[in-house]
Amino acid sequence: MIPPFMPKSPKDAEVRLPRIPLVNPHAVERMWQILDSKTKPPRSLGRLEELAARFGALRMTPDQAVVLPVSGRKPVRLNYRATVVVAAADHGVIDEGVSAYPQAVTEQMLLNFEAGGAAINALCKVASAELIVVDVGTKRINPYRGLHVGKEAEPATTRVAAEVSPIRDWRIRAGSGNLARECALELAEVQQAVNLGLNLALELDRCGHTIVALGEMGIGNTTVASVLTAVFCGVTDPAERATLVGRGTGVDDAGLARKRDAVERALRLHNPDRANPWQVVAQVGGLEVAFLAGLAIGAAAHRMAVVLDGFISTAAALFAHALCPDVRQYMFASHSSVEPGHRLALQHLGLKPLLDFDLRLGEGSGAALVLPLFAAAVAVVNDMATFESAGVSERLGN
Amino acid sequence: MIPPFMPKSPKDAEVRLPRIPLVNPHAVERMWQILDSKTKPPRSLGRLEELAARFGALRMTPDQAVVLPVSGRKPVRLNYRATVVVAAADHGVIDEGVSAYPQAVTEQMLLNFEAGGAAINALCKVASAELIVVDVGTKRINPYRGLHVGKEAEPATTRVAAEVSPIRDWRIRAGSGNLARECALELAEVQQAVNLGLNLALELDRCGHTIVALGEMGIGNTTVASVLTAVFCGVTDPAERATLVGRGTGVDDAGLARKRDAVERALRLHNPDRANPWQVVAQVGGLEVAFLAGLAIGAAAHRMAVVLDGFISTAAALFAHALCPDVRQYMFASHSSVEPGHRLALQHLGLKPLLDFDLRLGEGSGAALVLPLFAAAVAVVNDMATFESAGVSERLGN
Repeated sequence: MIPPFMPKSPKDAEVRLPRIPLVNPHAVERMWQILDSKTKPPRSLGRLEELAARFGALRMTPDQAVVLPVSGRKPVRLNYRATVVVAAADHGVIDEGVSAYPQAVTEQMLLNFEAGGAAINALCKVASAELIVVDVGTKRINPYRGLHVGKEAEPATTRVAAEVSPIRDWRIRAGSGNLARECALELAEVQQAVNLGLNLALELDRCGHTIVALGEMGIGNTTVASVLTAVFCGVTDPAERATLVGRGTGVDDAGLARKRDAVERALRLHNPDRANPWQVVAQVGGLEVAFLAGLAIGAAAHRMAVVLDGFISTAAALFAHALCPDVRQYMFASHSSVEPGHRLALQHLGLKPLLDFDLRLGEGSGAALVLPLFAAAVAVVNDMATFESAGVSERLGN
Repeated sequence: MIPPFMPKSPKDAEVRLPRIPLVNPHAVERMWQILDSKTKPPRSLGRLEELAARFGALRMTPDQAVVLPVSGRKPVRLNYRATVVVAAADHGVIDEGVSAYPQAVTEQMLLNFEAGGAAINALCKVASAELIVVDVGTKRINPYRGLHVGKEAEPATTRVAAEVSPIRDWRIRAGSGNLARECALELAEVQQAVNLGLNLALELDRCGHTIVALGEMGIGNTTVASVLTAVFCGVTDPAERATLVGRGTGVDDAGLARKRDAVERALRLHNPDRANPWQVVAQVGGLEVAFLAGLAIGAAAHRMAVVLDGFISTAAALFAHALCPDVRQYMFASHSSVEPGHRLALQHLGLKPLLDFDLRLGEGSGAALVLPLFAAAVAVVNDMATFESAGVSERLGN
């Protein structure tokens, strides 16, 4: 029932976007029937049940999505198999003095991901999630020590976590141009990054993954996300646009002023048109945004849940949504970030975050933090007894 | 550094409350020093870091709680070892028609816990937490099939989850009296229940547990929690008291009116005095509340984190807090329940919930759902590299 699609090779600059299947309304109804049969007052697990219903419905095959009495039917089993994909790139806009950290930190953090010492490594372990880090356009100087140098597509399942690098060196170019002064990317580069994301989704589906969490690393990328959010959410008032620009990793007041100025100059220079989303991302970047948008679209085409993290991954979601509006059905908002533009972007997508934890790290950390809630939702569906099977009395008067 | 205390035997009606150690302010400072040395912008993991700082500080030994340069010192390692304790009891107030479910459901759900089919079984598995169910006063008729019949204290670590029942038959009496018409319990029964809780905390500490999550099961117990919350939070206005009474497992409008009436009659009959907390719990019950209060106090005395679930476990926390105000330092609020009185009780304790998930199941389900956040906080402290160890540049201008 998945419409077959063949993403072009990563080198190919043409993109054929896959069809995203609509979630079957009968599947949602069936999920609620299953959840209401479990030994608990109906809906008493609140938002955990909403999560289970949404995730279950998008994973359900058409033959399962038939609402009949639960009794005697083959039970629906869900599969929790999660990957966090961290896309990394550098950004020319760093020259405008918009970040609290030097550009070298992008590369240093990739080495940290490789060595297992970053927050996302720790959080993936807790969530039993796999970590894949894709360098889609950093300015790194040192080679990676891992096996994923080169573009051979070794299936994720064959990797042994501790021994093999999580990093894939799929660099399209060494950092984007400075969006305040020039086009950040070529159109063909944006397309290539989307294609790489579509390809990875195909691989993840083949390996049986059911949930993909979007993360990113790239000094300067909250500036890019601010511009993209302003454009895709249609914020035209400069005063309102200034409120979309936050402190990122923790820039000071002078840095924040430079960042707001860079955003305004970029908008005036490019005058981006959200009716042409490809062009918008070429104008302002970044490669990790384009890659994550392709990954989200590919994941949705394979009926995987797409878990957003913070401001940058949600900017990628805005791009994906502009390309394929149906991708939204497969998206889940993990948390509401400290970045002021994040809330607006989530509202635009109609997504309600699961956590409100004042996070502003990125790396997919917030998305990884909510993965155990998905595991819990799956466990409720798979492991709980029904009133019938456990011999528990239903409500009085039923 | 733990003040030694010897809880009396469960049969003994006298209670010697243990001394609860104050959390060392240097330990909190040391935790922030450790967290700020990790490879992330300082405080960028928001509330996860606050959780790590609080939990780490209460687990820290005095020799660790010294703020010196992190470099070259033996790292602080935290241990995530969690148990969910579900205390079960029945309540005479059910005769007033206050619940949507028959009293038999208490026993049926205990059998469901034993068989592994309840929500809390599923959620414990996801959180890698042990489940212990203590029947402290149900009206059960059928015997439990498990090994924990009788009061022998088999250490939790020797149990094999799938083969041995999680249930401990520590019943003090078969259900409490109807609080709307009589005293729910004898004072000696309340003390006995608190002692059982203190004893279990001692056992959990001996087995190396570091986190105890409080759960409960007992048809009718939200009525008890409403009265206790009104008393311990000092709500004297009857109109305001009525707003503390919610629908519990889902009682209809007529049932809600009966529930509010029962609460008011109980308050008028007993005129409870919060200056005498033992008497209050004897007047209105319940045994699971008294047991969980003892468990919370005992856990705090052993520097374990105490994770509250919903309205009933928080009512137990109010009782514990009335007995030993210092227990509060060890308490964590997991979520903000649908029950209207829960928010007030959490405010009274000065606790901010981690999740807002519209839960109203009980069983410790909300507390179990946040345990992976504790695991994540522990992983950040134990597994993340420092700027120094990973060779990552710190902020510009530092």
